[in-house]
Amino acid sequence: MLEKFKNHIIQNLPFLTESKLLLAVSGGIDSMVLLHLCKASNFDIAVAHCNFQLRGEESNEDEEFVTTQCKELNVPLFLTHFDTETYAKEQKQSIQVVARSLRYDFFHSILINNDYDYILTAHHLNDSLETFLINFTRGTGLEGLTGIPQQNDKIVRTLLPFSKMDIEEYAIKNGITWREDSSNQTEKYQRNKYRHSVVPILQEQNINLLQSFQNTLEYLKQAQSMVEDASQLVYDKVVSEEDTIKISLTKLLSFPNYKAYLHHWLAAFGFTAWDDIYNLVNAQSGKQVLSENYILLKDRSYLILFPKQNEDQSVHYLIKKDQKEVKFPLKLSLCNTDDISNAEPTAIFVDEEKVTFPLVIRKWKEGDVIFPLGMKGSKKLSKYFKDEKYSLFDKANTWLLCSNNQIVWIIGKRQDERFKVTNETTQILKINYTN
Amino acid sequence: MLEKFKNHIIQNLPFLTESKLLLAVSGGIDSMVLLHLCKASNFDIAVAHCNFQLRGEESNEDEEFVTTQCKELNVPLFLTHFDTETYAKEQKQSIQVVARSLRYDFFHSILINNDYDYILTAHHLNDSLETFLINFTRGTGLEGLTGIPQQNDKIVRTLLPFSKMDIEEYAIKNGITWREDSSNQTEKYQRNKYRHSVVPILQEQNINLLQSFQNTLEYLKQAQSMVEDASQLVYDKVVSEEDTIKISLTKLLSFPNYKAYLHHWLAAFGFTAWDDIYNLVNAQSGKQVLSENYILLKDRSYLILFPKQNEDQSVHYLIKKDQKEVKFPLKLSLCNTDDISNAEPTAIFVDEEKVTFPLVIRKWKEGDVIFPLGMKGSKKLSKYFKDEKYSLFDKANTWLLCSNNQIVWIIGKRQDERFKVTNETTQILKINYTN
Repeated sequence: MLEKFKNHIIQNLPFLTESKLLLAVSGGIDSMVLLHLCKASNFDIAVAHCNFQLRGEESNEDEEFVTTQCKELNVPLFLTHFDTETYAKEQKQSIQVVARSLRYDFFHSILINNDYDYILTAHHLNDSLETFLINFTRGTGLEGLTGIPQQNDKIVRTLLPFSKMDIEEYAIKNGITWREDSSNQTEKYQRNKYRHSVVPILQEQNINLLQSFQNTLEYLKQAQSMVEDASQLVYDKVVSEEDTIKISLTKLLSFPNYKAYLHHWLAAFGFTAWDDIYNLVNAQSGKQVLSENYILLKDRSYLILFPKQNEDQSVHYLIKKDQKEVKFPLKLSLCNTDDISNAEPTAIFVDEEKVTFPLVIRKWKEGDVIFPLGMKGSKKLSKYFKDEKYSLFDKANTWLLCSNNQIVWIIGKRQDERFKVTNETTQILKINYTN
Repeated sequence: MLEKFKNHIIQNLPFLTESKLLLAVSGGIDSMVLLHLCKASNFDIAVAHCNFQLRGEESNEDEEFVTTQCKELNVPLFLTHFDTETYAKEQKQSIQVVARSLRYDFFHSILINNDYDYILTAHHLNDSLETFLINFTRGTGLEGLTGIPQQNDKIVRTLLPFSKMDIEEYAIKNGITWREDSSNQTEKYQRNKYRHSVVPILQEQNINLLQSFQNTLEYLKQAQSMVEDASQLVYDKVVSEEDTIKISLTKLLSFPNYKAYLHHWLAAFGFTAWDDIYNLVNAQSGKQVLSENYILLKDRSYLILFPKQNEDQSVHYLIKKDQKEVKFPLKLSLCNTDDISNAEPTAIFVDEEKVTFPLVIRKWKEGDVIFPLGMKGSKKLSKYFKDEKYSLFDKANTWLLCSNNQIVWIIGKRQDERFKVTNETTQILKINYTN
């Protein structure tokens, strides 16, 4: 398995070999095998362990176990404790949801504060199979059937090509010790229902279920990539973007499956009333369908999409003075700094005296103007998007950081000249985007 | 349910309302409900019932039940009996496979001999769910996850939007009687394993499983249609068809997911060694990968696809003199006739004295020539394909009927002038293509 693991990384994730990797280790068999594989591959690693204090003495023993193992392997360890139950009650959320959020916040904070590059988790092929079945049961689209993704930004899952059985064999062969999580043995959680009841029946029917599933995933991922291509290729033929987005029905209807495209494009704008939208194709001019933030209007042989102009209805998120962190709708961290030498593409430096709190995170609207950093003068944001070849989706997914309704940052993309740090700046605010 | 059934047909299958419909009725609840729904909708129907003699007296009672019901409803009935077990032993195939083949052959023969237009089967949403799970367990691509198709040529499944529960409710409400099939109650067949063991667990997790599944199917079918679009749109950009099929690697590699396209295109030509094919992209000129009937050759910045020239290796199916039927690789029926007035697009009339038996069914090859019916002179078949805008897939899926290596019929598409019926013809052979 070690050779296959190394090859998998060299062929598919070569950047990992030159990165500082933070391994999420619970002490269970999956993460212990991940730890040993990474150690044996001579990767530059540290371990992060969360004690959620959910299983009394067992949780503490897990922590001790991981601590001992890291010492023996001479691997740096980041440890933290959470009073998960209390926090879940405060947040009125399930323990699982809260634990997940606490865990990943902890990991990301280590990345930022200790200069690690990636978080490695020990998700494997059986996890992916369970995810497939869970999503399928709930009802999903193609993407929901492509399993657990290999990478989401900073989180990389290097064990996805390996089954639970591969992992168990490797652990036993190499004398790796681990701690059993008692909650895995019960059908307490939904995932365990699939693990212990559904998957074994499927395996009776096909003894090579995992191998077949891996092929299926590969085919479905290919199909998914082709769906994205079709969406873009047809979009380029059918849609013109100016101040609004104009869908030519004459061109669109040359595709017998035009509903698929309307669905694919408009879901990104929060539309859900599909029958209404499909009926709009043959409706008279002036009819419209609304989503939370957008209007789709029938206008002769076009469907025209534009944002609602009613400001009250669009979503605003506020950042108060001295707030250090934003979690929704995206993750930002804010801190004062004197050092602007290490500029990263995901961070900006702002003259704190030039901005007015609360800062606002919102979507774009007609009339927005940016003074792009390093350029002279201003530009309509719609023009900027066009020049930068933003697709419909890019625009819908773009968030703006604003001060007094002026753009400070097209978050993650382009800073505004007006708020930049100059020689006169006395207080520098660093804003980092981490998702 | 009756209203929803009628609406479903008017909106999605309007041609059924003006057709003669043959209902496949076993006597079970699904087909009995189908029969009553069609009767209540005033469709032009008859019933076909097969007695497979697999369950002794029970089979005969089913037959009697269906006979009585048809009399009461005043619906014509086509009945047949099969000694299924003996036939299965002779054919060395499973009872299920043989029963299926016997059943559909019987239905198709009624269509042809009694001028019915479509076969209606009672497959419903739960069947589709089971098919999804069976295919998934085996390993499949996107198409295998789109459930049971609503229509395959002459077979139409009008109950697919309805769940087993819809059907049961309708039967009880309307006092419809039916026969229980004892084999449904056991886990004898694979399908029953899913029905009785897997689906109930999924339904515990999502009480609206069937509704969610219907939405999932809709999304996956849309995705599948977009995959086909992407395949065609990218093919048009990347491939040139002359005597061979030339894939420009320069153009293809501008798609990061180029492997998906190679896979999608080349699977139709019987290729399976995907890693070899992907490696061919960076291999030196002259390297090649073979499928049963085709060669894929690396030639500078192109991949070139062409059929193997070795005749012995290509597949030939023979039709002997007086043979009435062909089942593989496609379904043909042959009969002598005096009446050529009712020409159907799926049938040709041939001067039997002009052809030489055995006739041969095979794929096309370089050098094939056709004298298209109604045109003067001959045409290279490769030219004909080009003029008719055959895609790569169309060509790969085209079968030729040949006499002495001369084309008699591009099956289902175009007859050859040389073998047509003339005033001198004394013996007319009608060849009908039914799949």
